[in-house]
Amino acid sequence: MSRGKFITIEGGEGVGKSTQIAALRDFLISRGLRVTVTREPGGTPRAERIRELLLEPNSEPMPAMCELLLMFAARSTHIANVIEPALARGEWVVCDRFTDATYAYQGGGRGMDVSSIATLERLVQGELRPDLTILLDAPLEVSAARAHERNQASGSADRFEREQRDFFERVRAAYLERARSEPHRIVVVDASGDREAVGEAIRTALERILDEKAK
Amino acid sequence: MSRGKFITIEGGEGVGKSTQIAALRDFLISRGLRVTVTREPGGTPRAERIRELLLEPNSEPMPAMCELLLMFAARSTHIANVIEPALARGEWVVCDRFTDATYAYQGGGRGMDVSSIATLERLVQGELRPDLTILLDAPLEVSAARAHERNQASGSADRFEREQRDFFERVRAAYLERARSEPHRIVVVDASGDREAVGEAIRTALERILDEKAK
Repeated sequence: MSRGKFITIEGGEGVGKSTQIAALRDFLISRGLRVTVTREPGGTPRAERIRELLLEPNSEPMPAMCELLLMFAARSTHIANVIEPALARGEWVVCDRFTDATYAYQGGGRGMDVSSIATLERLVQGELRPDLTILLDAPLEVSAARAHERNQASGSADRFEREQRDFFERVRAAYLERARSEPHRIVVVDASGDREAVGEAIRTALERILDEKAK
Repeated sequence: MSRGKFITIEGGEGVGKSTQIAALRDFLISRGLRVTVTREPGGTPRAERIRELLLEPNSEPMPAMCELLLMFAARSTHIANVIEPALARGEWVVCDRFTDATYAYQGGGRGMDVSSIATLERLVQGELRPDLTILLDAPLEVSAARAHERNQASGSADRFEREQRDFFERVRAAYLERARSEPHRIVVVDASGDREAVGEAIRTALERILDEKAK
């Protein structure tokens, strides 16, 4: 049985990741593939507990290094207990955020030394990298409006979502910089269009690795 | 105001760390010093939450790397929010376990690559190292009997304490190896004697850094 493909969906708040992940899952199933959908930080019971620690408002200042280590701790158990076993079973894994988000949020957003992130990436992931990453990109006006709407509806805003606007500008810039540096792996999709157009652009990006599988 | 000293107390289960830490605290206060007593993993509210994640029995397998990253995440917030501020205020910090325990438990006990631990130590601690480390050492027959007694009394045994005997032999060997490689910083105290004799040996080891302070 051939190993599955590892697809990650990246982007800031309010770019429509959840909607597009559901559509992508249905599309892959319609092509006869078995699919595991998961998310970061989280994806296993222990990683979800770590996610709670990351997101809860807390009066104790969170050192940037602590946040980074918790992210990679959650990723470590997620890889060992969900992602690698699914890929080994031949399933396609669609993950809502992965290490590119760490580079964007902790690196770009919080200004952490990128070499620290790269060091942890090597320690935790070894050779594991996504086969394809879809970066849903939209100007902050679009994504901020959507995120605001969602938080109004749920009546909540977690610690990350209360961050300042310039933080999100830095996150977006860091994402786009990563896409420029790894154009073969990371495909930028304009997420400001309507849902159908965005879904079509994602399916087009997928053709490359669907073709690889067919070989 | 001069910076305080950072003293760590190390050793396996049942070597009498808690008793000796209380005595050490009283001794330092009697010498006119201000003292912060703390512990790892833990020492801050967030680090104690991380400690809960580390100790709770859980059906999800814990990758050794996840455990290591959680240890250093807790350490990161502990250093930033407790240890460094106390040292900067001129207080002496007495910490129940620190990074030597990571080398002993995750390195010696679980067989993790020591270079991964050293990498994280540099990332998280920068130049911070204990000024003095007391390693309470006792043959496993002595410490296992004490740990068993305590668990019977409290009716509990956490995940670590249920580990096998050969695990604790490896932990002890790794601790002693570290003491051999850093004889100036790490003082080995025979913890199989009675409480008074152990306390006296600890106070003798302290004279060196008490003298440094007096200069």
